[in-house]
Amino acid sequence: MLNFDFYSPARILFGKGEEKQVGELLKPCAKKVLLHYGGGSIKKSGLYHIVVESLHKNKDPDVELGGVKPNPRLSLVHEGIELCKKENVDLILAVGGGSAIDSAKAIAMGVYYDGDVWEVYEQGKAIEKALPVAIILTIPAAGSEGSGDTVITNESKQLKYGYGSPHLRPLFSIMNPEYFYTLPPNQIANGVADMMSHIFERYFTNTINVGLTDSLCEAVLKTIINNAPAALANPKNYEAWCEVGFSGTVAHNGLLGMGRQEDWACHNMEHELSALYDVAHGAGLAVLTPAWMKYVYKDNIQMFVQFAVNVMGVEGSFREPEAIIEEGIARLKSFFKRMGLPATLSELGIDESKLELMAKKATGAEFGHEFGIGGLKKLNWQDVLAIYESVK
Amino acid sequence: MLNFDFYSPARILFGKGEEKQVGELLKPCAKKVLLHYGGGSIKKSGLYHIVVESLHKNKDPDVELGGVKPNPRLSLVHEGIELCKKENVDLILAVGGGSAIDSAKAIAMGVYYDGDVWEVYEQGKAIEKALPVAIILTIPAAGSEGSGDTVITNESKQLKYGYGSPHLRPLFSIMNPEYFYTLPPNQIANGVADMMSHIFERYFTNTINVGLTDSLCEAVLKTIINNAPAALANPKNYEAWCEVGFSGTVAHNGLLGMGRQEDWACHNMEHELSALYDVAHGAGLAVLTPAWMKYVYKDNIQMFVQFAVNVMGVEGSFREPEAIIEEGIARLKSFFKRMGLPATLSELGIDESKLELMAKKATGAEFGHEFGIGGLKKLNWQDVLAIYESVK
Repeated sequence: MLNFDFYSPARILFGKGEEKQVGELLKPCAKKVLLHYGGGSIKKSGLYHIVVESLHKNKDPDVELGGVKPNPRLSLVHEGIELCKKENVDLILAVGGGSAIDSAKAIAMGVYYDGDVWEVYEQGKAIEKALPVAIILTIPAAGSEGSGDTVITNESKQLKYGYGSPHLRPLFSIMNPEYFYTLPPNQIANGVADMMSHIFERYFTNTINVGLTDSLCEAVLKTIINNAPAALANPKNYEAWCEVGFSGTVAHNGLLGMGRQEDWACHNMEHELSALYDVAHGAGLAVLTPAWMKYVYKDNIQMFVQFAVNVMGVEGSFREPEAIIEEGIARLKSFFKRMGLPATLSELGIDESKLELMAKKATGAEFGHEFGIGGLKKLNWQDVLAIYESVK
Repeated sequence: MLNFDFYSPARILFGKGEEKQVGELLKPCAKKVLLHYGGGSIKKSGLYHIVVESLHKNKDPDVELGGVKPNPRLSLVHEGIELCKKENVDLILAVGGGSAIDSAKAIAMGVYYDGDVWEVYEQGKAIEKALPVAIILTIPAAGSEGSGDTVITNESKQLKYGYGSPHLRPLFSIMNPEYFYTLPPNQIANGVADMMSHIFERYFTNTINVGLTDSLCEAVLKTIINNAPAALANPKNYEAWCEVGFSGTVAHNGLLGMGRQEDWACHNMEHELSALYDVAHGAGLAVLTPAWMKYVYKDNIQMFVQFAVNVMGVEGSFREPEAIIEEGIARLKSFFKRMGLPATLSELGIDESKLELMAKKATGAEFGHEFGIGGLKKLNWQDVLAIYESVK
């Protein structure tokens, strides 16, 4: 086990009706709140009205900025920063999924950043300060409700970069699974692929003697696999959503990666798809993850046997480990298929024309400083291209 | 799944050498620190010297209060409160195990409490404020390094009560498993029984649809069972200690009980043993837990089958569930025995004379307001007496 530093201070308020106390929760911590959200779904569901009423009961009228899109855009972040400065906002309340939250976090640090906040993403600069961010989650997927991470798309540069800082850990996150009832099937499936990937990125490691986090990863993965099909089949299944929603938070609050070298190759490869083609992050991950597994498993046979046996329930002779691994990967693909997720880049509308460009961007080769990606196996641009090509 | 409110802000710094940065970590948060510890073990191990040096490099000389005993005493807490007030201490650094930490938490809230801090324990009063507490853990067991809980013994009244508040969550906890190397076998075993009990108290529940926390509980229990014998056999086994130590923190930081009704009957029954006979908490739990299981399992056969199968690895026909449960309990007893833990009250030096008194104290009957204890099955004093008597 490696040394680690675990810090996950976000308070999680979970269950029916919890959203009604948002105003009261914010009363002691904020004078002026920016309400930040996406499209019309929170108005359709009635959540917008509940939040505004709860805020107004406890505080002065607040500032609003809607319009966050999936793969949240830098341009709206810039707009939010100006608005917060002009209106002296002292807390951002994001209502929505990972996009609204990540956009809120970008605004929160941009308010104090001297320069274009994109530099923080591009250069990985350490920040000193950010506005506090609180959250009402309506899409379980990104895990951003518990993490200090944010991913933003610079649409003019066609770049999608992530950034993390303890200063971006949310103050609190409210999660009432009833607000997941209206999610369309593809969003449910994409969310599930995203949260599973957050675990895979931590689970697949060369670090040994990490039995606790191994088994925690396996527990959360199995909980998702056991419950996600029920939520997809009946999106008003409260109990299934409780399991999936809570799993999504635990998947990405940091705990599962403690003491382990993490991987993150699949996330890096996927960010290129989203940046150039604006595909849904989870859909891209569903295509790339099994392809990545097939490409790298020979580098750590024992780890992938453990995955196949402990997560995918494969039984068989440990003396034929590759057969066990292949069955494990096949079962994962089958699970993704059952969830309605794509298996090829062409299903995502991605042709061959830019595969090499994306491979070079993902690994830094395009910018003349190839760093390689991945912890379990370091991938160069040729590796990434081979993975893209294996799922054309 | 029940609604829940999860809040676990304690930062955990884990691994070799982490203790050396304690002064630097405290520099921005405290002007005057009370160093609070037990007997001579931290001086023998050299940790005392490292801590004092790290503090002095970064800050003015600090205040010290040693002498914390197992089942930490109210009298020393009173002394600590006076000292903190007199010296204007603004942070308490506990170096030791659960006793030093719980004593530090009691002092931390006592400084701001108007009256005898024992009232907080006795009456369960909500506190508004406490001094911040930071921790260097030298005994993995109590989980107090991540929790907002404290247990104190009022030696003049022969009472041992617990109390919890979010204000008592530690600022940070440093855990270097190398400091566990010198623990004697009985302390290792007692610590293991204590952390397992923290999971059992959350795991055994009548709440259904809690698949995620069920499987997280099982993962942590199995990690402890898999690694504790190795730490006992060779207390210098760093990797085994990493698994056991980290498990002890996860066992009690709150996560595993989220969305579930919890039990806590065993802890309540054990506190009476410690209060009257000053026995080690973990040893008492090792005696009482299997006895409690035998006494209550008929109230939730499915839960105990799940325990036997998923935790203790029992295989068999689910159509003869009681045979599976009995084998599960037998395996737990066998594990405790392998760890060198006692199986009867007489091994703890407890005779029959006060069993009824303890049963009545545990359930409140002695004080004329019987409240009963336990979530899975509510126990009255006759139930508790029957459990005590079953392991005379």
